[in-house]
Amino acid sequence: MKDMSEKPLLIVGEDLCQQLVGRSDAFDAVQDVFAAMARGDAYNFPVIREAIGYADALYGFKSGFDRAGQVLGVKSGGYWPGNLDKGLTNHQSTVFLFDPDTGRLSALVGGNYLTAVRTAASSAVSIAHLARKDSKVLGMVGAGHQSAFQLRAAAEQRDFEKVVAWNPHPEMLPRLGEVAKEIGLDFEAVSQEELGAQADVIITITSAFEPLLMKDWIKPGTHLACMGTDTVGKQEVDAALVASATVYTDEVAQSITLGEAQHAIANGSLTEDQITPIGAVINGDHSGRASADEITLFDGTGVGLQDLAVASVAARLADEAGLAQRAAL
Amino acid sequence: MKDMSEKPLLIVGEDLCQQLVGRSDAFDAVQDVFAAMARGDAYNFPVIREAIGYADALYGFKSGFDRAGQVLGVKSGGYWPGNLDKGLTNHQSTVFLFDPDTGRLSALVGGNYLTAVRTAASSAVSIAHLARKDSKVLGMVGAGHQSAFQLRAAAEQRDFEKVVAWNPHPEMLPRLGEVAKEIGLDFEAVSQEELGAQADVIITITSAFEPLLMKDWIKPGTHLACMGTDTVGKQEVDAALVASATVYTDEVAQSITLGEAQHAIANGSLTEDQITPIGAVINGDHSGRASADEITLFDGTGVGLQDLAVASVAARLADEAGLAQRAAL
Repeated sequence: MKDMSEKPLLIVGEDLCQQLVGRSDAFDAVQDVFAAMARGDAYNFPVIREAIGYADALYGFKSGFDRAGQVLGVKSGGYWPGNLDKGLTNHQSTVFLFDPDTGRLSALVGGNYLTAVRTAASSAVSIAHLARKDSKVLGMVGAGHQSAFQLRAAAEQRDFEKVVAWNPHPEMLPRLGEVAKEIGLDFEAVSQEELGAQADVIITITSAFEPLLMKDWIKPGTHLACMGTDTVGKQEVDAALVASATVYTDEVAQSITLGEAQHAIANGSLTEDQITPIGAVINGDHSGRASADEITLFDGTGVGLQDLAVASVAARLADEAGLAQRAAL
Repeated sequence: MKDMSEKPLLIVGEDLCQQLVGRSDAFDAVQDVFAAMARGDAYNFPVIREAIGYADALYGFKSGFDRAGQVLGVKSGGYWPGNLDKGLTNHQSTVFLFDPDTGRLSALVGGNYLTAVRTAASSAVSIAHLARKDSKVLGMVGAGHQSAFQLRAAAEQRDFEKVVAWNPHPEMLPRLGEVAKEIGLDFEAVSQEELGAQADVIITITSAFEPLLMKDWIKPGTHLACMGTDTVGKQEVDAALVASATVYTDEVAQSITLGEAQHAIANGSLTEDQITPIGAVINGDHSGRASADEITLFDGTGVGLQDLAVASVAARLADEAGLAQRAAL
């Protein structure tokens, strides 16, 4: 039973992921897997999420299979709130990839950096396909760890001139301002209302449990990418805004249960069949934005296949560059 | 964020598992985790199992957390029917262990050998706690890959003198006979009725979808360990036998839905509250066998915590012996 045992297990650490996987790699990988999902060539397995009753940790798995890309695997990980005091990040993720032809473990990939990159790629894909071409002002709601990744990826999709930003903790905004300056964009800390009045594209990336943007503050033609809501009870924007927008998502099943659309679905102002998988737009099966005045909203819930897609890129690039550690099982 | 990065990831391959993890290690680990489950100190997360629509593969995850043993992790793997032609085993398993204090991946352990060992340990634990002390004849139903592991582990629990065996494919029995001889036991290939008439302890380890042993063939005082049924629709023994026996299991939730008890539950001849977790006997909260005439039946469904328990032993022993490969994520 040893014939294929020379095929080594690739191990790709966090540093190597950061070195090798760029924003355009992540964009392409996430765009492709969203398209495969909408065609029925890729699907996510049920998500496992458990409060383990120890160390206040939330732990679980996201997994799936992309037949088109030949990517099979699982991202394991969770949230350990005490980690920062130990010099570790609170979110810990690892991706395991398997050979779809044999079931053998093929790669082990650090998932912390990749999680940020794939989430940013998701909103960037939505901007590429749904935002007005003449969008000039990018609005950022949220200024945490992920916001800089979001800003960098979004900035590459349109000829933005300016970033307007709001965060529940305003003292965190200057760090995001530094990122904006670094990529040559003006930066202004504004009120929530002012953000809505100025922005052509808005990304929300918070852990909020109440609406931070109301329907009346948003101007016609805006594209919103709501990236923070991934749990029952979380909410970033007014349910009336969601109901009045044309809604797209990564996975409809998650959008209606634990994504930003959950509240509009729950109060009956939005129905499941009004939500379009972004992959349908990528595939050309849905025409996307209908007019310059339409408000489009992307409900980015985050699916395991995104993680597997970017991890697969990391493994391939590390293998090609001869930089992956190798082990045998 | 590097303070703890010197703590390496341990990689323990199949060969090392075979070299280091003995039957008594597996017995102790499985006995301890069954006890922890019954006390509420350990629990299994929901099982993911998917027919992925490619290579006829069944793929999935079993996971859980043992707070008492401080073991957190997931066994991934599945069944790839085309592997034998490629020189690989059809069942492919890998276990991933995480540090419960931080969520970091701590060990990667080959799961193929360990799956056989932990399944054998499970029936052995049931024999140790439920079979009559004066049991002399061991009955084996099944002669596949797992049967030799089952026989070796069971033989250590009682002073058996003889093995009687039956298999749907009788040509496979001589190989099991060699194992019996190796450990000093007489071996006889018999009919199913004769097996029931002679055996004091019976292990069933097949992939059957219909009863192989009927109630009337089993003599009073027998202990049965039904180890093959792990899926809806599978069945190894007569539902009337299950209903008339005193039933124990590893996990009640699995026993009633996909274990051997599913059929007696479905026809109403057994109720959930009549099934006792074997851990309750191990802990002394249930007195176990009530008389020399009682028929006891252990429904071994197989839980993720068993895999994590033996993998944790493998990682510890490999680390102590300085034999584990090490990597950094």
